[in-house]
Amino acid sequence: MLIVQKYGGTSVGDCERIQNVAKRVVESKEKGNSLVVVVSAMSGETDKLLGYTKFFSRLPKEREVDMVLSAGERVTSALLAIALEEMGYKAISLSGRAAGIVTDTSHTKARIEEIDTTYLNELLAKDYIVVVAGFQGVTEKGEVTTLGRGGSDLSAVALAGALQADLCEIYTDVDGVYTTDPRIEPKAKKIDKISYDEMLELASMGAKVLLNRSVEMAKKLNVNLVTRSSFNYNEGTLITKEEEIMEHPIVSGIALDKNQARVSICNVEDRPGIAAEIFGALSEANINVDMIVQTIGRDGKTDLDFTIPEVELENTKRVLKAFEGSVESIDYDSDIAKVSIVGVGMKSHSGVAARAFQALAEDNINIMMISTSEIKISMVIRLKYAELAIRTLHSVYQLEK
Amino acid sequence: MLIVQKYGGTSVGDCERIQNVAKRVVESKEKGNSLVVVVSAMSGETDKLLGYTKFFSRLPKEREVDMVLSAGERVTSALLAIALEEMGYKAISLSGRAAGIVTDTSHTKARIEEIDTTYLNELLAKDYIVVVAGFQGVTEKGEVTTLGRGGSDLSAVALAGALQADLCEIYTDVDGVYTTDPRIEPKAKKIDKISYDEMLELASMGAKVLLNRSVEMAKKLNVNLVTRSSFNYNEGTLITKEEEIMEHPIVSGIALDKNQARVSICNVEDRPGIAAEIFGALSEANINVDMIVQTIGRDGKTDLDFTIPEVELENTKRVLKAFEGSVESIDYDSDIAKVSIVGVGMKSHSGVAARAFQALAEDNINIMMISTSEIKISMVIRLKYAELAIRTLHSVYQLEK
Repeated sequence: MLIVQKYGGTSVGDCERIQNVAKRVVESKEKGNSLVVVVSAMSGETDKLLGYTKFFSRLPKEREVDMVLSAGERVTSALLAIALEEMGYKAISLSGRAAGIVTDTSHTKARIEEIDTTYLNELLAKDYIVVVAGFQGVTEKGEVTTLGRGGSDLSAVALAGALQADLCEIYTDVDGVYTTDPRIEPKAKKIDKISYDEMLELASMGAKVLLNRSVEMAKKLNVNLVTRSSFNYNEGTLITKEEEIMEHPIVSGIALDKNQARVSICNVEDRPGIAAEIFGALSEANINVDMIVQTIGRDGKTDLDFTIPEVELENTKRVLKAFEGSVESIDYDSDIAKVSIVGVGMKSHSGVAARAFQALAEDNINIMMISTSEIKISMVIRLKYAELAIRTLHSVYQLEK
Repeated sequence: MLIVQKYGGTSVGDCERIQNVAKRVVESKEKGNSLVVVVSAMSGETDKLLGYTKFFSRLPKEREVDMVLSAGERVTSALLAIALEEMGYKAISLSGRAAGIVTDTSHTKARIEEIDTTYLNELLAKDYIVVVAGFQGVTEKGEVTTLGRGGSDLSAVALAGALQADLCEIYTDVDGVYTTDPRIEPKAKKIDKISYDEMLELASMGAKVLLNRSVEMAKKLNVNLVTRSSFNYNEGTLITKEEEIMEHPIVSGIALDKNQARVSICNVEDRPGIAAEIFGALSEANINVDMIVQTIGRDGKTDLDFTIPEVELENTKRVLKAFEGSVESIDYDSDIAKVSIVGVGMKSHSGVAARAFQALAEDNINIMMISTSEIKISMVIRLKYAELAIRTLHSVYQLEK
């Protein structure tokens, strides 16, 4: 099998850990696999380097920030190659440039445009373990870029796609994706297989194992993604096409997001375009609006409720000041939590939502907002009930089994 | 003027110091100069990175070592560019690759083969301050290389040569080249101008400001080299062509080397080729033989005295074991010091040596070996007299004036 492995900052946090990664790489190699290994910078290194740039400027030039940040991954990739060579294996480190990763010119958050795999394939054919510095590429003109948060995951997924690898393994310090946060519900179980779409819904809700950018790219490039721990040998979670999963549970997982706030606008003029104006203004201010509920208008007026990230609260208040004249009142409420039930199995099963509503009602938890999609039901409740709701729903759908 | 400035590891040792370097660069820019600035890694950084590589292997693969080490200079170059931009100047950092520095393939001690200055000249024409990561280049195939000890100085001198810069300023933590070590003779004076050849003799004797590789390259490329401190505004020392210096003092400086050992071989068979055999064997073992004195043979035998670096003493003993049969005795003596008088003015002045011998005799210092060249007189004396000899000679040639 051709496998792309990716080891995050914690996994390569110091020399001992890099040595441990080398051991794991070799174990996979010994099973007869061809290997491309993508590494992050040692944990803390990127923050340290970023701190340096901030010493000189509040807004350091992004081209130069990329030149600074890209150094971290170069170091770990070469160190891992040295460790592998010392163990008797042919290994070589490649910068993003040498790995053929070409991006657009958006420094510090570049998008991968294409990967020229010629040199990579040449090295793999010669039986090299190829260690690639993650998080980085070059523009067509050869300027170094970095890919932003979760960038090394992206490097790995993109390389797996370009090389048509059989598997892309993302190693972190957690075992995989869980049915819910095990710190809230100790009975939470690791999920063996999950579809890209379910993972996207879980990830956006705070299951921090993988950022959505990587899952989206994996879906687009048809990459079989496994997330697992580099600190033990537990099987991880396979994220793959829906069709690859034989039996779908109705509900795959319960997600929690405590970092949202609710905005309630009362008696908005019920004229065409007013909602568009409001959401347009928020979008221009880069405020990500999530759940939107609009109640039927009475007396030519309507109520509008939606959620925003809590950190954008002040920003939102500033933007909405402009609309104060045309509405009765605007209320802000950050004492809320969003609980979501995710599962592709829902599509073919009615009554999933009803069971959730009933279970929460039995716990005397008031549901303040509801929004549903084909594979997700999200509910806004009071913050203090968040953990209780998670445990109740986890049990209702028997996810501990 | 087009000036290449180079700042060493101590000068860019932390963010405050990089900020200080930015100020100095700007001062020079404000005088109307075009500037290329070469920087080393933050002091300690290269050793830290080298330490990492040694964690994994006693002999880490040199290609990978270069990948690791080159990261340090990339970081400082970008940080300096950020600092300069923040001060309102157009600045851009370039890796060795981007600066067009092409080397041979000898990883960790590569030699610069050529510099493609197209991009550099383009940036200078656009009034950019170009900050180049020192110590590194790439092979023709694009593999990253490093230039070995003193590599950033080499980068600077080579760039100055290729760009036909008016000046190459090497900034360190000392004011320049002194007539002798000021820690031994407080009356030592900074030299304003010195020829390449004199500098080469002084440097090889332990005036550690510049390595000979850089001075040799400056001589070859006709680069006017200035060495000065980045911590004050004292004028430094200009190292240039002999012809550029109007008035030569007879003696420019007194150098001391305490790290030599003397080897005395008594009654070597006086047959052709025996000396060649001995020095051939030493050369093969990479032992650098310096002063050589051979006394006239008697009874078909001859005595051979020479000096070697003290650290090579054990190595030398091992090599010379093979010759024990063909000589009467081999003595080793590391209780010595080599004192050298350097000056191009000597060429046209007789009696320089005689004055030295007389002065040392008056101090009761016995001269054990003498060797002379056009611009240098070296003498081996007992180690304990080293400082006294330096002070005496410094005064004899009135270098304090």
